[in-house]
Amino acid sequence: MDKDYVVGIDIGGQSSKLGVVDARGEVLAQSVVKANPSADADVIIKELADAVIKLVAQSGKHGQIRGIGVGAPNGNYYTGSIAFAPNLPWAAHGEVKFAEKLSEACGGIPVSLTNDANAAAVGEMTYGVAKGMKHFIMITLGTGVGSGIVIDGKVVYGADGFAGELGHTIAVRHNGRLCGCGRTGCLEAYCSAIGVARTAREWLDLSDEPSLLREVQNITSKDVYEAAKEGDAVALRVFDFTGRILGEKLADFIQFSAPEAIVLFGGLARAKDFIYEPTLKAMNDNVLPLWKGKVKLLFSQLKESDAAILGASALAWEL
Amino acid sequence: MDKDYVVGIDIGGQSSKLGVVDARGEVLAQSVVKANPSADADVIIKELADAVIKLVAQSGKHGQIRGIGVGAPNGNYYTGSIAFAPNLPWAAHGEVKFAEKLSEACGGIPVSLTNDANAAAVGEMTYGVAKGMKHFIMITLGTGVGSGIVIDGKVVYGADGFAGELGHTIAVRHNGRLCGCGRTGCLEAYCSAIGVARTAREWLDLSDEPSLLREVQNITSKDVYEAAKEGDAVALRVFDFTGRILGEKLADFIQFSAPEAIVLFGGLARAKDFIYEPTLKAMNDNVLPLWKGKVKLLFSQLKESDAAILGASALAWEL
Repeated sequence: MDKDYVVGIDIGGQSSKLGVVDARGEVLAQSVVKANPSADADVIIKELADAVIKLVAQSGKHGQIRGIGVGAPNGNYYTGSIAFAPNLPWAAHGEVKFAEKLSEACGGIPVSLTNDANAAAVGEMTYGVAKGMKHFIMITLGTGVGSGIVIDGKVVYGADGFAGELGHTIAVRHNGRLCGCGRTGCLEAYCSAIGVARTAREWLDLSDEPSLLREVQNITSKDVYEAAKEGDAVALRVFDFTGRILGEKLADFIQFSAPEAIVLFGGLARAKDFIYEPTLKAMNDNVLPLWKGKVKLLFSQLKESDAAILGASALAWEL
Repeated sequence: MDKDYVVGIDIGGQSSKLGVVDARGEVLAQSVVKANPSADADVIIKELADAVIKLVAQSGKHGQIRGIGVGAPNGNYYTGSIAFAPNLPWAAHGEVKFAEKLSEACGGIPVSLTNDANAAAVGEMTYGVAKGMKHFIMITLGTGVGSGIVIDGKVVYGADGFAGELGHTIAVRHNGRLCGCGRTGCLEAYCSAIGVARTAREWLDLSDEPSLLREVQNITSKDVYEAAKEGDAVALRVFDFTGRILGEKLADFIQFSAPEAIVLFGGLARAKDFIYEPTLKAMNDNVLPLWKGKVKLLFSQLKESDAAILGASALAWEL
């Protein structure tokens, strides 16, 4: 019998999501494993393996699973390890040979692993808007800013497996904001959900301009989005600014790998109506003439609840 | 008989250089064709083909040439064309199907073509300091700043063949210098030979600090280099500044493709003693901790007079 199904696992700090997926990107069955506070990687891996086995049985596809794809913070494609991932207590202080151990615990089904943004890129290439593209760059705009770069139809992993940290290229060289990575001025400090909220808070402090956001305690990017939908001038300018910073850096990335498209994904990409125009304009204003108006700016259309599972699962088709 | 030799042609605005090269990177014979002011591409190609045929005959390797590799401004690897190259009157106003026509004029020997910086990267990978490396970035510091990016052992050409314009990524975002490309703040406006000379001239205007450079009319980068060798404080600071700007951008590039090394080449790379330290420091100060101190900063060791021919010739081994 052909093995026509794959399993995708998206590992997160709060919970991990699992799904059994077919070649068209239909999620046949899915489940969630809540984060276990244990710092023992073997306990965690056993728990995940049990969940995989149960889910595969539920889906009725036992014996037909080609492989398991895993997207995980700090996941390394080459080594199959997760190492020094601050949000995963069981992988925060060393290197866990995750792919190897999970495969063993799942009766030898092969396992492929990479970080979440690379998995998202493979997902878009396999099931999404980048289907058929050989050259594109995936940018994930979530709590942080991640990236997955595809050249000649393959994700770029680099010499060590960690290529594609575009969220930590420098967007603001002088007096840039402190980033979570400890450096200043990173793209992530401006164009993540946290960055958007911070821009709004800083601007409200700098003027007395009326804004719906003045009524909000602890502004989040979602609040800025809701205010923008109401036509709030400050909120709209926050997205203009965010789009401009993002577009300027996208222009640099285009000059690196000359992609056919940039694909945006993640919470902030939901604010498409507000960031598309300023991002596209800044991108085209900042590329060499030969690329002006030529590189597509696309938004992922994968269902957000499935996207992480799909991305991870797509890795397994290459096994 | 095996075809164990290749021809390299480096096409320039002033002259084109040709060489017959063996697998170890020895240039067995070489010649120069002075630029012909003709705007007729067919005339130029005939002239180059005649020179190739003559040189191959001289080298005694007739019938043993595997292919011809060409490095040319605005050369496109995919199409084999040279298009809109401002310094080549015969290819300045349209697209010339160069590879196809040269092959025809040379009796059907296959021809591969790319731009000069990509050719330099292939040259380093075939004969130079990047031999055996799968992931590195070549930066050519000449009149302009060019780049050739190698990932998984292959030059990155991108969707359209024009990838790797790192000299035109933005180094200075606000009040940046005007670049030859018409935009402002490009890396090339600071870290090319012209950029170095300009930095020196600007700084001399801004202070009364004594400097050997004050005696020089129309300062060039070579003058700055000579002054630095004499210990001139202004000239030394110019190289410090140039290295810092370069290193900051190299850090961004590392975060893109996670290379094993950056290889510097070109006129300015000769000032190694003055730019190595500030470049390396800025590079390591600006990368994510995971790459700090890990990516090598190398200088090409190919003989400068042969390097352009070697780079171009290396393309032909892949034919």
